[in-house]
Amino acid sequence: MTAADHASPGGRLYVVATPIGNLGDVTLRAIEVLRAVPLIAAEDTRVTRRLLDRHGIETRLTSYHARSGAGRTAALLDHLRSGADLALVTDAGTPAVSDPGADLVTAWAAEAGLVIPIPGASAVLAAVAASGVAGPRWTFEGFLPRSGRERRERLARIAADERGAVIYEAPNRAASTLADLATACGPERPAAICRELTKLHESIVRGSLGDLAAAAAAGARGEPDGIPARGEFAIVIGFVSAVATAKGPDGDAADLASARAEVDRLVAAGVARGEAARRVAAATGLARRRLYGAEPRR
Amino acid sequence: MTAADHASPGGRLYVVATPIGNLGDVTLRAIEVLRAVPLIAAEDTRVTRRLLDRHGIETRLTSYHARSGAGRTAALLDHLRSGADLALVTDAGTPAVSDPGADLVTAWAAEAGLVIPIPGASAVLAAVAASGVAGPRWTFEGFLPRSGRERRERLARIAADERGAVIYEAPNRAASTLADLATACGPERPAAICRELTKLHESIVRGSLGDLAAAAAAGARGEPDGIPARGEFAIVIGFVSAVATAKGPDGDAADLASARAEVDRLVAAGVARGEAARRVAAATGLARRRLYGAEPRR
Repeated sequence: MTAADHASPGGRLYVVATPIGNLGDVTLRAIEVLRAVPLIAAEDTRVTRRLLDRHGIETRLTSYHARSGAGRTAALLDHLRSGADLALVTDAGTPAVSDPGADLVTAWAAEAGLVIPIPGASAVLAAVAASGVAGPRWTFEGFLPRSGRERRERLARIAADERGAVIYEAPNRAASTLADLATACGPERPAAICRELTKLHESIVRGSLGDLAAAAAAGARGEPDGIPARGEFAIVIGFVSAVATAKGPDGDAADLASARAEVDRLVAAGVARGEAARRVAAATGLARRRLYGAEPRR
Repeated sequence: MTAADHASPGGRLYVVATPIGNLGDVTLRAIEVLRAVPLIAAEDTRVTRRLLDRHGIETRLTSYHARSGAGRTAALLDHLRSGADLALVTDAGTPAVSDPGADLVTAWAAEAGLVIPIPGASAVLAAVAASGVAGPRWTFEGFLPRSGRERRERLARIAADERGAVIYEAPNRAASTLADLATACGPERPAAICRELTKLHESIVRGSLGDLAAAAAAGARGEPDGIPARGEFAIVIGFVSAVATAKGPDGDAADLASARAEVDRLVAAGVARGEAARRVAAATGLARRRLYGAEPRR
């Protein structure tokens, strides 16, 4: 067990969140820390230089990214061991979320070094907060694998989970991933597509996965009323009670049909029927026997 | 499907992240927005007033919290429908994460109203970034139920999940929750306890769940070398490959024993043995047959 405190040996490793688009999304303390440290380890020094220039900060930058290798990590650890502070930043958002920063944090923490978070912008929380569909508990999935068994398993797991999920996707792959999500989760499951968050053309579109997949496909074909394949996508899959409590034109009957469809989807994704009925009953307030019984389903 | 853009009717709903402790953790844009809007809906107006005073902001505040009820939500929607902007803040961190803000966001989005995230501090991402143990994918669990079947099920699910998890807990309940987590996940699973993040007595302690549970129990008894029961706890459960690749004194043998114990824990939590062996094999690089075979386990 390592308890790092102000008596820790060596320098302080500041894990500093930076803007995800709008350069105004930097905190007062991040500016202060980036100015005070002797060295900043940055995913892309040119990107970080733009942020520093904006705030008149002249701190030295060094490159540290996914392909830097163990030698660069060792050099940064030597810097910290010498007693000098270091700030770790990525191109955008909070380090150690979908990026290599966690290796450095883990290594310095293993030496009982002091790691200090400087919280700030992140795409995952901006998407959760502004979409309003993730629900109280959710999973962060990062990027899905592009193909193969692991992709299918990850999709099935998201479908079987009644919690919300946040997925990142590149613009040129978003339409196919949304189509796969609609197939796996069912086209009625609510979701949101967040693009270019905090930027000039920020866009948050909410709807069913089926509608969103169709709109992304139209956008990928260049149709003007589609969702354009531009900017990184943060896709938020809604939590299940949002499905089941959305009132359709038939009110209760639509609720029941939607809830039963949800049970079927969970079963198709590998959840035992009894457990699936229990989960959906808990989320919808509908009686479990109405979801689980032997009566025919449409 | 609702696509909100700048042609949306009514006012803009800004979802504004605020500091989680250190008042310097506010972004330049948050200050600008909180100054510019005519009204701020705040979880506790006294807490938000301190932040506003610090930055010389005199915007009117109105109370909006978990017990406000539908009438207050309706009044805020009327404000937005009239064309006036509104900022939504909580006492700390990013709204719509473990708080009632999601209701307002969902309702305004349902009217095709414009919802604009102003990203900033959040305890969940500060804990993920600075602990270094969550891994590339993780779940946000919020607070666990205090007792009963749902608590047991949530614990079992966290144990069965090879991803990291972030859990919030009140200081007076942290020791018992850590003991339950150590029982459910096994005492060897790596974890971190983050307390008083961004504050003067910020503390991040990493270790096995067994060691952390013992330290929290000691702290709850007032022992000076324990983890004190002060400040809100963010508990980060490590991802499973961090368990399985941690080298014990016996090297490979310890890895194998630890991996087999992990398979047993997953099975106890309801995962089929074949699936459990597959997951642990994928996480550890150990051959699945060594985890799954009929050979006796210790």
